[in-house]
Amino acid sequence: MSGSTVDPAGGAGYATVSFLSDYGTSDEFVGLVKAVIKDIAPHASVIDITHEIPAFDVRAGSLALARSIQYLPSGVVLAVVDPGVGTERRAIAVEVAGGAGVVVGPDNGLLASAVAMAGGADRAVVLDRTEWHLEAPGATFAGRDLFAPVVAQLCNGVPLDELGTPIDPDLLLPGVVPVPREEDGGLACEVTWVDRYGNCQLNVGPDDIEVWGDRVRLTVDGTPRSAAIVSNFAAIGAGVALVIDSYGMLAVCADRQSAALELGLSAGSAVHLAPLEDGDGSSPAVRVSLRDKPVA
Amino acid sequence: MSGSTVDPAGGAGYATVSFLSDYGTSDEFVGLVKAVIKDIAPHASVIDITHEIPAFDVRAGSLALARSIQYLPSGVVLAVVDPGVGTERRAIAVEVAGGAGVVVGPDNGLLASAVAMAGGADRAVVLDRTEWHLEAPGATFAGRDLFAPVVAQLCNGVPLDELGTPIDPDLLLPGVVPVPREEDGGLACEVTWVDRYGNCQLNVGPDDIEVWGDRVRLTVDGTPRSAAIVSNFAAIGAGVALVIDSYGMLAVCADRQSAALELGLSAGSAVHLAPLEDGDGSSPAVRVSLRDKPVA
Amino acid sequence: MSGSTVDPAGGAGYATVSFLSDYGTSDEFVGLVKAVIKDIAPHASVIDITHEIPAFDVRAGSLALARSIQYLPSGVVLAVVDPGVGTERRAIAVEVAGGAGVVVGPDNGLLASAVAMAGGADRAVVLDRTEWHLEAPGATFAGRDLFAPVVAQLCNGVPLDELGTPIDPDLLLPGVVPVPREEDGGLACEVTWVDRYGNCQLNVGPDDIEVWGDRVRLTVDGTPRSAAIVSNFAAIGAGVALVIDSYGMLAVCADRQSAALELGLSAGSAVHLAPLEDGDGSSPAVRVSLRDKPVA
Repeated sequence: MSGSTVDPAGGAGYATVSFLSDYGTSDEFVGLVKAVIKDIAPHASVIDITHEIPAFDVRAGSLALARSIQYLPSGVVLAVVDPGVGTERRAIAVEVAGGAGVVVGPDNGLLASAVAMAGGADRAVVLDRTEWHLEAPGATFAGRDLFAPVVAQLCNGVPLDELGTPIDPDLLLPGVVPVPREEDGGLACEVTWVDRYGNCQLNVGPDDIEVWGDRVRLTVDGTPRSAAIVSNFAAIGAGVALVIDSYGMLAVCADRQSAALELGLSAGSAVHLAPLEDGDGSSPAVRVSLRDKPVA
Repeated sequence: MSGSTVDPAGGAGYATVSFLSDYGTSDEFVGLVKAVIKDIAPHASVIDITHEIPAFDVRAGSLALARSIQYLPSGVVLAVVDPGVGTERRAIAVEVAGGAGVVVGPDNGLLASAVAMAGGADRAVVLDRTEWHLEAPGATFAGRDLFAPVVAQLCNGVPLDELGTPIDPDLLLPGVVPVPREEDGGLACEVTWVDRYGNCQLNVGPDDIEVWGDRVRLTVDGTPRSAAIVSNFAAIGAGVALVIDSYGMLAVCADRQSAALELGLSAGSAVHLAPLEDGDGSSPAVRVSLRDKPVA
Repeated sequence: MSGSTVDPAGGAGYATVSFLSDYGTSDEFVGLVKAVIKDIAPHASVIDITHEIPAFDVRAGSLALARSIQYLPSGVVLAVVDPGVGTERRAIAVEVAGGAGVVVGPDNGLLASAVAMAGGADRAVVLDRTEWHLEAPGATFAGRDLFAPVVAQLCNGVPLDELGTPIDPDLLLPGVVPVPREEDGGLACEVTWVDRYGNCQLNVGPDDIEVWGDRVRLTVDGTPRSAAIVSNFAAIGAGVALVIDSYGMLAVCADRQSAALELGLSAGSAVHLAPLEDGDGSSPAVRVSLRDKPVA
């Protein structure tokens, strides 16, 4: 979160809602959430982060939100990936950054990493004051009936503790952050995100493997490759390389092609990184190449 | 439609345009409609309901618009699914809710259900005053050349009857509303909408089958199943159930899976609902199960 | 570009950013560009032209931008299809239409046709003043780190020459405009765009073939067809026809079906147009039909 609290009416309140979900855009879900917000808080504008989080994929949503939050303007952040909608899972609002932002969504781990990235929770409430919600004939669309009116009221300056019952932020459901582990003289990593271009972000940064130099051994499905560490796509040349991506992580990339397609990677895939051995690239016992299968 | 008429300039006019179409987002169609609106009425903001109505599918657009309209803020509603663009089909604007809203689009049945949901037409005009339209080298993009400038002028407060010739609202093309019919001791229903998650909305509400209890026989393609009626996805367990959805209709759903894929359903598919018989679930003659094919 | 310069704060500046890219919407790329703009220039609103330009396809982006620019409101136009991001390719801002607009993006040919459509460049700068950019851990997301803050500063009224070093607009990389050529007594044309409905725009207008009358010979993959020239889709009837599209070009279209699917056309496909010969449609030697393969 950046900037300072916007004051639309000489008091508290927010002017911007940043919105992420797994709603897709083929149905009217996203539109109706915005319609309800606009109806209650006409001054608020909504920024769509993305709505194409894979359906029900809380982990993917959590990672996208964590990558994004530092760039979002001051205001409300609404995140909805909510397979437990209508059950006992709690709906929450979490104040962060001294009130510069409020993160709203289900308490299912979706918000945890983003809240941590924003400096941790100042305070939190369970959104159990149903008088602020829309009456609805069914319980399956909390985005429209619960989250949208609450978000709009936050924009209008309604204090957090009027919208719900305070809870201990330390008791919110934590997110799962995949951490690389040492294995076989290197690091067992994981693909955290495959973007539209087929770039595969790993859960490891350049500092973690700096001592290995500017070229490492990258192993996928038992096949080792020599991969350079470069700073842009054009420097990759043929094959794949590790690019320092715009979030400061290493990503397996190809130039103007999909590394995900080339190597068969998707979110959650295992990738092993290790220092290049002396014989790599020349030893007949462990031949490392960009494209070929290894020769024993 | 909710709220009251917004007055951007001390007079008539609207601040918000809710926009639904089959334009998709892979081309610049939606962007250019918004650009023309912004150019003529800079104060107006546009809410995208959805633009992924299947190409040319007036019925799907009509249903989505009817589901949405009660949640849209006061203002103009623009709907464009318009396979007859450039022909004699009429472009119309329909005032609803005492002037709280104006529904604009082609007179091909797309608008009828939504207008009815909003309380019916107060008055209507055919948008035949071409001096308000953009001159265009071809007739195929009425969204940009006809509807966008008219919508913007409505936002600017131009009265409806300056934009076109009044017509009798009763003569507008009606929409087709699928109604369930009694058949074989139950109801022959229809899937009206399959959403992103594979939930299949039916044209029947819980009140219509309340007397049958909390579990019914659901038959698709000759295969009967016992299906519970539940209020959220997590209550489904394995298999499928009927969930009371957020519009108050019954929907065939699975928990974190696509019921549409599981049962082979799509928009327009036939589904038969009936009371469970005593023997259901136990009789060897009519074995009902969640997943198996029936055993004769 | 239309309209006049908007003045948000009693001075220079712009209120609207029109934004086209190949970012897609499945990731947070578009959202973060908008978030950064909103953070720096809260008064600015962003119109999405489209973000579904095929990945890396500078030509397709250039054509979509050129089709769009005459309809965009006064303000900043941001276009990003940028496979060379992070390399020596220049980032530029080009003032057009006497300051009514500034076109911003990579200097890789993407902007050239749109700038020409807007009347040509008044002046241009290379965006090399890094003090206006966001610091970033990697160089791969210029949209967020370079273009978004620069666009926002333009909206805030920062003069163009404070954002970068002036360059000669004549030295910007030109775009590639496909021109039809005379061949075999007709015109060898090219499909420049296949839209969502499967309409295939050609690089030829109705004036270019006016002398051939209202029906021509259209040849794809060696198969000639007789195609009428019509003004709307409903006039096509069965098969395909040439429709004068909303940009004033000829497009190969079918009524409520995809001409692209029917004829196997995609962007870049070759299409030959020629006058109908006397024997066309009747001669056994060159039988022309709407659907059949030719009979020798």
